[in-house]
Amino acid sequence: MISKNQIKFLSSLSFKKNRVKHQKIILEGYRLISESILAGIDVEYFCITKNYKNNTNGNLFDKFPVYEISEVDLKKIADTKSSQGIIALVDNSKYQDMTYDNLEKDNLVILDGIQDPGNMGTIFRTCAWFGVKTIILTSNCSDPFNSKCLRSGVGSHFYFKKIITDEALSVCKYLMDKKYEILIADLDGKNICNYKKQNKWALVLGSEAHGISDDFKNYNKITIPKKGNMESLNVSVSSGIILNQLIQK
Amino acid sequence: MISKNQIKFLSSLSFKKNRVKHQKIILEGYRLISESILAGIDVEYFCITKNYKNNTNGNLFDKFPVYEISEVDLKKIADTKSSQGIIALVDNSKYQDMTYDNLEKDNLVILDGIQDPGNMGTIFRTCAWFGVKTIILTSNCSDPFNSKCLRSGVGSHFYFKKIITDEALSVCKYLMDKKYEILIADLDGKNICNYKKQNKWALVLGSEAHGISDDFKNYNKITIPKKGNMESLNVSVSSGIILNQLIQK
Repeated sequence: MISKNQIKFLSSLSFKKNRVKHQKIILEGYRLISESILAGIDVEYFCITKNYKNNTNGNLFDKFPVYEISEVDLKKIADTKSSQGIIALVDNSKYQDMTYDNLEKDNLVILDGIQDPGNMGTIFRTCAWFGVKTIILTSNCSDPFNSKCLRSGVGSHFYFKKIITDEALSVCKYLMDKKYEILIADLDGKNICNYKKQNKWALVLGSEAHGISDDFKNYNKITIPKKGNMESLNVSVSSGIILNQLIQK
Repeated sequence: MISKNQIKFLSSLSFKKNRVKHQKIILEGYRLISESILAGIDVEYFCITKNYKNNTNGNLFDKFPVYEISEVDLKKIADTKSSQGIIALVDNSKYQDMTYDNLEKDNLVILDGIQDPGNMGTIFRTCAWFGVKTIILTSNCSDPFNSKCLRSGVGSHFYFKKIITDEALSVCKYLMDKKYEILIADLDGKNICNYKKQNKWALVLGSEAHGISDDFKNYNKITIPKKGNMESLNVSVSSGIILNQLIQK
């Protein structure tokens, strides 16, 4: 059985400052946990309810310690309203590295001010599908390790080499210095379907509410041509369409 | 001021059976309402809080009646936790028509068993962007007029000619009868980027949890080629990538 101190510690990880301090996060639910293990994470331990234990074949539990937890205690920790009865404590110290070391050859996806954690996680999942290795977030993005972003990312976080957070201006300087082709997703730019990419690229996606920040405004804009009357696309859908165009070519 | 009976009526519309019976729905929030008006809906009336009234320029309210509502009463009606203070009652009798009349020339998007209302709304938004005019849902999909689907659809619902719900088998029969090229989005199929479409097409998207239902299993499968290690893409992201390929060509 899990101890009171452990429960207190696990609950404290719902706050970003504690996740950063302890370099640990919680994953909730079977699908997220199993996909994250596929992506190579190490689980420190699982907490599962009696009910979950009785209704599972336990194939996740061969390699890592398992504690039983009461439904009531799990509710103190889990973010989801109706928890499946399984969480995992995971080390994420690897993602504390905010340096640009060893990135020079990578194509990059940059999220500028994206606050919606569901969109952010879905973009991560899309990037991992298309083999993008590094994500850069401007400092006004929400925390990529909050539970909603982890959930919609379905384990994709752990395929990345780095998830860097930095000021927009410093990101621009790095990209210019390393001669990246900077592509800004915008409603008014060159048709992405006809776009001939030249070098390694850095794709910048802004928030639906606030658009692209001024630091990125002077670079090449690309657009997904529209055929209907709708005002805009969801930003995670846009990320998929643009990455498919950039990567399949 | 809005009456108690009106509040009771508006609250009752959180249930599908009442939406169907009265052919009316509620839209919540400025963005959804203003985009829906752009798409051509008629508002029966607005309900706004005093606070909202004092902080808005009122440009929405020229053409339609406006009632004041208390914060407490609005909470009984609104689905969102922190309501902006504005809802609209809207007629959706147009979308009660489940016949296939006048569709024969349209490309179609078919959602098979999609339960997640956020994904469904985002797919609607994507379809409206790409000029798709008709959506067909199999009967095991969630209700397209629930508040979450409306919210993530951002008004796209009202650009469609029809949103039909029908049994999967009847949908198949219609498509075969009208000689549609049926394309099933699947993890294992022909590369959509190389696909040469021939006739009018019907794109079928299944749920992430359950895949495509047996009724659709024998048709042409198309796939978005992956470059990374991620297991799967979000279904709304997939819809965007495939529609971009089908429509730009």
